[in-house]
Amino acid sequence: MRILVTNDDGIYSPGLLALAEVATAFGEVRVVAPDVEQSAMGHAITISRPLHYRATPLGGLEAYRVNGTPADCVALGTHHWDRVDLVLSGINLGSNLGNEIWHSGTVAAAKQAALLGIPAIAFSAPINGREPDFEALKPWVGRVLEALLREPKPFLINVNFPAKPKGILWARQSVRLYEGRIVPGTDPMGREHFWFAATPDHEPEEGTDRWAVGHNFIALTPLRLDLTDEARLSQAFQLAASAD
Amino acid sequence: MRILVTNDDGIYSPGLLALAEVATAFGEVRVVAPDVEQSAMGHAITISRPLHYRATPLGGLEAYRVNGTPADCVALGTHHWDRVDLVLSGINLGSNLGNEIWHSGTVAAAKQAALLGIPAIAFSAPINGREPDFEALKPWVGRVLEALLREPKPFLINVNFPAKPKGILWARQSVRLYEGRIVPGTDPMGREHFWFAATPDHEPEEGTDRWAVGHNFIALTPLRLDLTDEARLSQAFQLAASAD
Repeated sequence: MRILVTNDDGIYSPGLLALAEVATAFGEVRVVAPDVEQSAMGHAITISRPLHYRATPLGGLEAYRVNGTPADCVALGTHHWDRVDLVLSGINLGSNLGNEIWHSGTVAAAKQAALLGIPAIAFSAPINGREPDFEALKPWVGRVLEALLREPKPFLINVNFPAKPKGILWARQSVRLYEGRIVPGTDPMGREHFWFAATPDHEPEEGTDRWAVGHNFIALTPLRLDLTDEARLSQAFQLAASAD
Repeated sequence: MRILVTNDDGIYSPGLLALAEVATAFGEVRVVAPDVEQSAMGHAITISRPLHYRATPLGGLEAYRVNGTPADCVALGTHHWDRVDLVLSGINLGSNLGNEIWHSGTVAAAKQAALLGIPAIAFSAPINGREPDFEALKPWVGRVLEALLREPKPFLINVNFPAKPKGILWARQSVRLYEGRIVPGTDPMGREHFWFAATPDHEPEEGTDRWAVGHNFIALTPLRLDLTDEARLSQAFQLAASAD
């Protein structure tokens, strides 16, 4: 099995190396990741300039850094390697729960793989004052991979770890409330400015990704790529076509 | 009604001005748009530096440019104006059909509004060798707004124009095939590089956004923001929780 590993924190993130190391037990691994951090880049792609690879030493693995976004890395990595069977993204420095996934480069890399028809899994771990203990999470990454590789293909799964997992749960995306808000501030020159702060401020509903992680379970959330709101569409009427 | 207008082509795009001018017939309009082009930025947000506004002359409208992404503009614009009833994004220079919406800053602005609970509409028009004829599209923008403002709120609608509309159709997102691909090239110094080219290369299915526009109809596609794949989730089993 050929496994492409990427992330949004950049090629030298410890979470990327941890994920790639676990992946070597499951197949042939190649790392293609952004040359600089691309957090909160969402599903951006680079269309106004060309992309390039640079071979990069990374723990004895075959690894390349790319001057682009996470989605670019998946497009380029799957082009470069003539067949890719699985794309893994992460382990992200920070959770990607609920509506955070809209802004996530980690999840976007997995979505990009799914758009290309390749099974994909995004992994994220929380920052609670300090970076995740990736060494402690590695056995859990292996258990999640063992479980998900039995799933029917293709699949697109968003995986979120708690700091200290006690098990694994399937969970739906938490969508009840959105956590992004604008916080005004002042710079040292006295000019007003604004921060986009995405911090959860509500109690999660049972059965959601955020709830599962809050109860120390690893949350597995299957995602879809058809954004059509079928309920709305079925209500919608065809407006009378009028000639211009 | 307070209408916030934004886009991803930047504050001085003719499509933004056209949309804002039509909107003035429906309510009080404020423009908050990126200071530079943000095409293909997807749902990126700015979290590692502060944002700021600059008041900008724009056709007699109240307008501000922001050093951020389309989603940033919506977050900041709705924070700045204490109540926003509707967010309009566009008119984009280029279609946002099918899986293109994943990379679209235009659609991301509307999604950002929906995340904040505000009804939102994204507008896009095709480039067929030259820029869209926005003056000719303005009456159609008015007709679309009249129709959509009768919809139950909140809503999130992706609107795509053909070059010369002959009517309006509801349509689902075209998701059968993904059009992104990598095209190798060489720069003038002889170095290999790669372009991320997102060009449709298949026949659209009937009833989809791409099909409607291909038949000269304006496509209205209602979107959802819960990415949970319910079918997959209902199949999924709860893995045995194992103590660590």
